[in-house]
Amino acid sequence: MLETFFQPQSVAVIGASRDPDKLGYAVLANLKEGGFPGALYPINPKADEILGLEVYPSVMDVPGPVDLAVIVIPYPYVPAALEECGKKEIPTVVVISAGFREVDREGLERERELIGIAKQYGMRLIGPNCLGVIDPNTPLNASFSAGMPPSGPIAFMSQSGALGTAVLDMAMAGRIGFSKFVSLGNKADVSEIDLLDAWWKDPASKVILIYVEGVPDGQKFIEVARQVTRDKPVVAIKSGVTASGSRAVSSHTGSLAGSEAAYKAAFRQAGVIRAPSMEALFDYARGFAYQPLLPGDRIGIVTNAGGPGILATDALEHAGLRIPRLSPDTTRALTEYLPGAASAANPVDVLGDAMADRYEQAIRLVLHDAQVDGVMVILTPQAMTEIEETAHAVGQMAQESDKPVLACFMGEARVDAGIDVLWQYGVPNYPFPERAAAAFAAMSGYRRERERPIFRPEPSEVCIPRVRELFDQVRSEGRVSIGDAEAWTILECYGFTVPQSRLAETAEEAVDIAEEIGYPVVMKIASPDILHKTDVGGVRLNLRSPDDVRDAFDLMVYRAGRYVPGARIWGCQVQQMVSSGREVLLGMSRDPQFGPLVAFGLGGIYVEALKDVAFRVAPFSRQEAEEMIREIRSYALLEGVRGEAPADHEAMVEALLRISQLVTDFPEIVELDINPLMVFEEGRGAMAIDMRLVLSS
Amino acid sequence: MLETFFQPQSVAVIGASRDPDKLGYAVLANLKEGGFPGALYPINPKADEILGLEVYPSVMDVPGPVDLAVIVIPYPYVPAALEECGKKEIPTVVVISAGFREVDREGLERERELIGIAKQYGMRLIGPNCLGVIDPNTPLNASFSAGMPPSGPIAFMSQSGALGTAVLDMAMAGRIGFSKFVSLGNKADVSEIDLLDAWWKDPASKVILIYVEGVPDGQKFIEVARQVTRDKPVVAIKSGVTASGSRAVSSHTGSLAGSEAAYKAAFRQAGVIRAPSMEALFDYARGFAYQPLLPGDRIGIVTNAGGPGILATDALEHAGLRIPRLSPDTTRALTEYLPGAASAANPVDVLGDAMADRYEQAIRLVLHDAQVDGVMVILTPQAMTEIEETAHAVGQMAQESDKPVLACFMGEARVDAGIDVLWQYGVPNYPFPERAAAAFAAMSGYRRERERPIFRPEPSEVCIPRVRELFDQVRSEGRVSIGDAEAWTILECYGFTVPQSRLAETAEEAVDIAEEIGYPVVMKIASPDILHKTDVGGVRLNLRSPDDVRDAFDLMVYRAGRYVPGARIWGCQVQQMVSSGREVLLGMSRDPQFGPLVAFGLGGIYVEALKDVAFRVAPFSRQEAEEMIREIRSYALLEGVRGEAPADHEAMVEALLRISQLVTDFPEIVELDINPLMVFEEGRGAMAIDMRLVLSS
Repeated sequence: MLETFFQPQSVAVIGASRDPDKLGYAVLANLKEGGFPGALYPINPKADEILGLEVYPSVMDVPGPVDLAVIVIPYPYVPAALEECGKKEIPTVVVISAGFREVDREGLERERELIGIAKQYGMRLIGPNCLGVIDPNTPLNASFSAGMPPSGPIAFMSQSGALGTAVLDMAMAGRIGFSKFVSLGNKADVSEIDLLDAWWKDPASKVILIYVEGVPDGQKFIEVARQVTRDKPVVAIKSGVTASGSRAVSSHTGSLAGSEAAYKAAFRQAGVIRAPSMEALFDYARGFAYQPLLPGDRIGIVTNAGGPGILATDALEHAGLRIPRLSPDTTRALTEYLPGAASAANPVDVLGDAMADRYEQAIRLVLHDAQVDGVMVILTPQAMTEIEETAHAVGQMAQESDKPVLACFMGEARVDAGIDVLWQYGVPNYPFPERAAAAFAAMSGYRRERERPIFRPEPSEVCIPRVRELFDQVRSEGRVSIGDAEAWTILECYGFTVPQSRLAETAEEAVDIAEEIGYPVVMKIASPDILHKTDVGGVRLNLRSPDDVRDAFDLMVYRAGRYVPGARIWGCQVQQMVSSGREVLLGMSRDPQFGPLVAFGLGGIYVEALKDVAFRVAPFSRQEAEEMIREIRSYALLEGVRGEAPADHEAMVEALLRISQLVTDFPEIVELDINPLMVFEEGRGAMAIDMRLVLSS
Repeated sequence: MLETFFQPQSVAVIGASRDPDKLGYAVLANLKEGGFPGALYPINPKADEILGLEVYPSVMDVPGPVDLAVIVIPYPYVPAALEECGKKEIPTVVVISAGFREVDREGLERERELIGIAKQYGMRLIGPNCLGVIDPNTPLNASFSAGMPPSGPIAFMSQSGALGTAVLDMAMAGRIGFSKFVSLGNKADVSEIDLLDAWWKDPASKVILIYVEGVPDGQKFIEVARQVTRDKPVVAIKSGVTASGSRAVSSHTGSLAGSEAAYKAAFRQAGVIRAPSMEALFDYARGFAYQPLLPGDRIGIVTNAGGPGILATDALEHAGLRIPRLSPDTTRALTEYLPGAASAANPVDVLGDAMADRYEQAIRLVLHDAQVDGVMVILTPQAMTEIEETAHAVGQMAQESDKPVLACFMGEARVDAGIDVLWQYGVPNYPFPERAAAAFAAMSGYRRERERPIFRPEPSEVCIPRVRELFDQVRSEGRVSIGDAEAWTILECYGFTVPQSRLAETAEEAVDIAEEIGYPVVMKIASPDILHKTDVGGVRLNLRSPDDVRDAFDLMVYRAGRYVPGARIWGCQVQQMVSSGREVLLGMSRDPQFGPLVAFGLGGIYVEALKDVAFRVAPFSRQEAEEMIREIRSYALLEGVRGEAPADHEAMVEALLRISQLVTDFPEIVELDINPLMVFEEGRGAMAIDMRLVLSS
């Protein structure tokens, strides 16, 4: 569906210009000089010929069909031009022109007009306000970039066009190549989601890179990315993380930045690798693009210097990779071959006087060791070092192997020629061991990602109609907030255990209920008008006798009436008191971009004071729920400390899955807190003590 | 004292060779070709002339005085050569030769021999097993490196010579310059500490960089670095952090790696900036070396692209810097000058079509704004961008200003010429905004460091003789472990409050004591032979009556005798029960490199399960104690949550200072735990409930 953006047979440039200072000239020149093999139609009512090509006054006048139109005219004329593209039945259009949503409200209106026209004619549209589209394999350079980047296995999309120019300039210097390059601009129509889907099965693209400021449809993004990442790595950099950063986003393209917690959860659930910096984005990309996937987490290191070997070891282990002991055969062979002072253990130190042959032999042995999944080759330019010869040896062995090899030739002046040689073999070089280690870590993370079971939400048996009925009832009364008995009904419909509890309308009734439930009990004022019960003394714990219950009833009703005059008082809820077990919080809020964001943490101070909370976007799988629980820093407390039995893990997972299902079934739930969920010892389940839920109004 | 390593009048190369493949040739050639202006004496009994210089059979035969000798002969001949240097009264010697401590036990012996000779003659020695010494200003290249690096304000020392070759190769490509370069090798004599001291007042060195695997004398390192860092920044990279990393260190130079916690604490206390990677080491260094210090934490950003501006903002805020609102005057002037679509707020977006003049005007306004302490200039190579002209503008304004300016010209092919221009003005360029942000963060961290009060331990009034006496007593009994009553005596001598407590030898005596102290009480078995009292049921809490006390006494004595046959039972300690307050742990262990490492954390699960502990090397200052308390993640719990009053901060600080003093006064204390220190509400002090202390045996 989007192919004609990248492999069109014919391209029209609407706004092609004779003036080399105009973008309309740059785009046409890029197409022509980039060697586009199809038909090229400059469109300009005031010219006859540009760059030796025949010019047409309108796309309507082009004799044959047009697959792709690139619009580079001032914004007031764009809608009419787009309308003509529609009439001409052009399937795909890139609007480079600016002056839309990014400028003001009127611009937003103009952009909506474009969307309407595109929809009407069934056209797909990239932009407006973008740099254009490049496919070096076609070759097609439908952009105003300064030249065509080398071709290669990296597909790149960017919400920022300017950042795209920097990336292309980096590529022009060599050592990185692209299969696709798209500047998305305002994303009026085509977004990251469409391109992910389009590039999923593209054989030319081994890895997909995304620079993103905001995702329009978070749930769809997760759904699509989740599938794509099973087949190829997707690495993203998300900007606008901190407070000022978010401000900068809104003033930039006007996209609404989702909260950091939601992005973190969503990327993780989608299997998207998050790069911490632009540099890391391309460091990771080169590993994925030019080397085989890392089949495990065990890295062999071959180095001619101890110090950098230590730095590499530190960085690898810090990132969760392992520096395995080499197998006895390898160690024996290395010991025989290497000089006495060398280290035959991993990291293998071939010593400062190692020439290319010694490197070659050591790398071959380590690379063939079954204990090793990938190899990092470190070289410092010492007096005897044969830099280029060693690079050839590294390259040849990497090409013969199905394990990834990353190089770290350190330095600049002398090593540069060696790095060029490595590059001929597709071996990425990193100037410092820490960066090579980070690339290996990304590769290892991706492997784990692919090993995860396919996402499958697990619907439990629940009673949707009963909850629907209750919500309707609440809303018909003009309320949006739900707690207490109503909340328990919902929880029971979703398979939660809740405390025994009944409403008492009189003090004597309260005593009867308490006797039935068994002491001690908890009592709470029951009123639809009192949200914060503790503030009005409306909660009493640990009531141990009929007198306690009677006194509590009278006092609470008296106080509630006094502090909240006019409140409807239904009486008191008498409730089983549950005190053993560990208190856990389950919550949900709606993220503007990703929807239901479910939170999990230990109750009390851990959530409040220590902000120790894990998030996932619902719906999520059993495995994701399990990971969520393990993610909190205070997880050790759930496993049990000081001889405590572990908390019932299964019950927590089940509770999370059911909340995931509840908030997915009912999009009108905008907020929800189960606080606490009392989790008992392993095998004994959990009980939802208290829930507050808010419906959209 | 060490000047002749760097500015000698005359240098002898012992082992100078005619064979260009030998290191002895490389060193002499480097000295000669590097333009060393003093006298150069090749020493070689088998040659008459090398590189046009007269050769002497021995240093003894050199006619004039020799300031520096460089030894590059096989290890068996080094001691004799060094002896001759001594006789010749050469003050400083660099031993490049390998074959010492780094190879085996015999090598270690040989190295000790060298140390002995150097001491005997009062010589200072760098190496052995090193690359050599370089001072580009002298100019002196007494190393076998591949050429002389450019001169500049960076002083660099490295424990790894190979890593040094990579650093020099990087320098040879330009954009970084050195004042000093030392490969320390095995550090038989001259160590990081000596060089820090020597370079402290060196006007040619604006920043000192250290690559270190292990520090020999941690206390001395802190003491010296603490002073140096008040005058100039010291940036260090410490390798051997993780488990395998440490292994690699020991097999490398045989230095004993201190624990990561100790290094973290020590570097922090010494004001040494820790670089997380080699790349960061030089990124920070270029900021410090070529730009003024950052006077605050407010960064102005000028960019021609929104996306990278957001990335910069994110990275800066994440690192704790601020993106201030610009003053109204600046905003007004920017609004007037810039086109309508530009952003006059920080980050200032001059738009993609900005030429050099627009950049210049915007940078000038932002740089002069009193709200701004430093400026980051971001450039993406867009169609209209004037890269070199903009670089000139940035450079000129940076030179006129006393605020630091860091550049981020993104890309490679087109921007490279611009980066060269920036470099002419001493403006460091970082290829990605995150790296420039990290450099600013390091500069800001250093500023805070310098603003700290000068380190001054605060001795309290304590009673050393009483503790000394007690230790003597304990040791005379053949014990090394101290707890209970003895521990309290020590704590009281150091100004701690301890619970009321007395030893009861009979059950009736226990009741009498309990009546006197007041119920409830705690009872503990008193026996020098029982270390883990709880394991034998030897601790009872919350005893509320004479019967409770009587029963507890009999039961504990019975059980202790049964479970630990032959144990000396002194009776039971009856102790005031303290239950209000927050439990805090103070501990100390001896780090092999830094000595007394004091730990602070919340008691119970926080330390045990969550590993939430802060460390400092004793002695430390009041401010350091305060920082230590604030450093733990669960600090919020000490401030008070859910309406609790804060814990007595002053009392915790005081306790830490007194422990710092105790473990400094008594180096024989190898381990100590106060667990818990019960901290009461603000103003109410703290009480040390339990202490265990172990003396060296």
